[in-house]
Amino acid sequence: MHYADRLALRIKKTSPVCVGLDPILQQLPEGIEKSPAGVEKFCKGIIDAVSDIACAVKPQLAYFELLGWEGMKVFFEVCGYAQKKGLIVIADGKRNDIGSTCDAYAEAYLGEDKPIDALTVSPYLGSDGIKPFVDACTKNDRGIYILVKTSNPSSGELQDLPIGDEVVHEHLAQLVESWATAGLGQQSNLSCIGAVIGATYPEELTYLRTLMPHVPFLIPGYGAQGGTAEDCRTGFLADGTGAIVNSSRGILYASKGSDWQKEASKAVEGMARELKRVLAK
Amino acid sequence: MHYADRLALRIKKTSPVCVGLDPILQQLPEGIEKSPAGVEKFCKGIIDAVSDIACAVKPQLAYFELLGWEGMKVFFEVCGYAQKKGLIVIADGKRNDIGSTCDAYAEAYLGEDKPIDALTVSPYLGSDGIKPFVDACTKNDRGIYILVKTSNPSSGELQDLPIGDEVVHEHLAQLVESWATAGLGQQSNLSCIGAVIGATYPEELTYLRTLMPHVPFLIPGYGAQGGTAEDCRTGFLADGTGAIVNSSRGILYASKGSDWQKEASKAVEGMARELKRVLAK
Repeated sequence: MHYADRLALRIKKTSPVCVGLDPILQQLPEGIEKSPAGVEKFCKGIIDAVSDIACAVKPQLAYFELLGWEGMKVFFEVCGYAQKKGLIVIADGKRNDIGSTCDAYAEAYLGEDKPIDALTVSPYLGSDGIKPFVDACTKNDRGIYILVKTSNPSSGELQDLPIGDEVVHEHLAQLVESWATAGLGQQSNLSCIGAVIGATYPEELTYLRTLMPHVPFLIPGYGAQGGTAEDCRTGFLADGTGAIVNSSRGILYASKGSDWQKEASKAVEGMARELKRVLAK
Repeated sequence: MHYADRLALRIKKTSPVCVGLDPILQQLPEGIEKSPAGVEKFCKGIIDAVSDIACAVKPQLAYFELLGWEGMKVFFEVCGYAQKKGLIVIADGKRNDIGSTCDAYAEAYLGEDKPIDALTVSPYLGSDGIKPFVDACTKNDRGIYILVKTSNPSSGELQDLPIGDEVVHEHLAQLVESWATAGLGQQSNLSCIGAVIGATYPEELTYLRTLMPHVPFLIPGYGAQGGTAEDCRTGFLADGTGAIVNSSRGILYASKGSDWQKEASKAVEGMARELKRVLAK
């Protein structure tokens, strides 16, 4: 099934909550070994705790790469486990390259045999750095999320530079929409090409939704970074799909004690409730 | 020793040639198994063939990641082997993220115990996505190369957007120069912060050298992509340092027969001779 259709079904069944898997050794709860094996146990424990309520998990590749090849082994193991539990798996790698190198990244993370539904990608190289990913998405029913307006304080240094009457990220948004309309899901009417838009810039989010009506949004910056459910509201479509909201630390490290799974579950429930409340308005 | 000083010494001792290690299974020469073990044997064979003439190798992470965790194991093994042979090792990963995630990438590839001298990084996130890398460079005598003007045909879609009297990549170049001047090598007077500028855009290369006098350049696009030694000339400083020129396929796959090492060696010699000729002008 087309990625956007699969995603929309899953949001309706669960919630728009995406749980970022950022396994930081120093922050692992008590009783979890600070090792690749500990990271695997922790991530699987979080997946068990959230899979009934969350729509997706977003493993952050950097933390797995930090553990070397053993970390990469755990990464694929964790992705497979999450998929088996019904979760959409978004590998947060912000990969980017051109030509056959981009093909290699696409095959590495969006290949038919990979337990991953979507990958985040960085756009500075232009469409040469996007098309190979889109080809893999079309072939294998996968998705990508292109960085458009990121949640961090300095995102404006490049993304907000003025070009004529608009700014760089608005120009990019129009490019993304033009790429997106080539292959829409039959049920969702959305593309396999998504966009990352930070919850920390709610005005931009509202405007970017109008520029990209066919693009699923991945909205980071909720919670620890300051974004609220209300800030995310305008990123959604009228039926409550079209966007997922990510939180990482607020869920993973809700408790460092032995009740970490229970507290993670509660944190996701609270976030799902809050999002549903503002979306019902 | 400061990365830029180490690099300048190595260029003087050898040449400005950087050999891109893009181990594509389908293109491996005869007698090499199409497997992670084959990739390791091939990369080490290329390193043996070029280490007396080339300044650096640039393993392309995508091709190792394509082989899963076994590929990542080979990646670090190959990097360590290249360093032992005296080569500067530039991991081409175009990584980018913010905050503690960016710290994780920096530690994963520029950590004290990692056999890697420098990493390529993508700039769309702004300085939040650069500073953690620079901190690791300063602490561990490593380097980064920020994508500024890339060699591919569509690079202009974002990089050449007009902002006032300049374009996006020129604006970024000025940011890079401002970050660079904070920590220069005592001998080279160059920064640990470098820039990627494609040989396929020689006019831009010339102008970008004037905008970034303290920034080492990594110049891809030579050979297969159409860039010539003459196209690269203005990226160098007067003493013949300040830049390295990358070629991948023209060297790696110079022969697919049993003489692949000999032909790779010859290809590097030819490229080094050509670069020295135009730099002597």
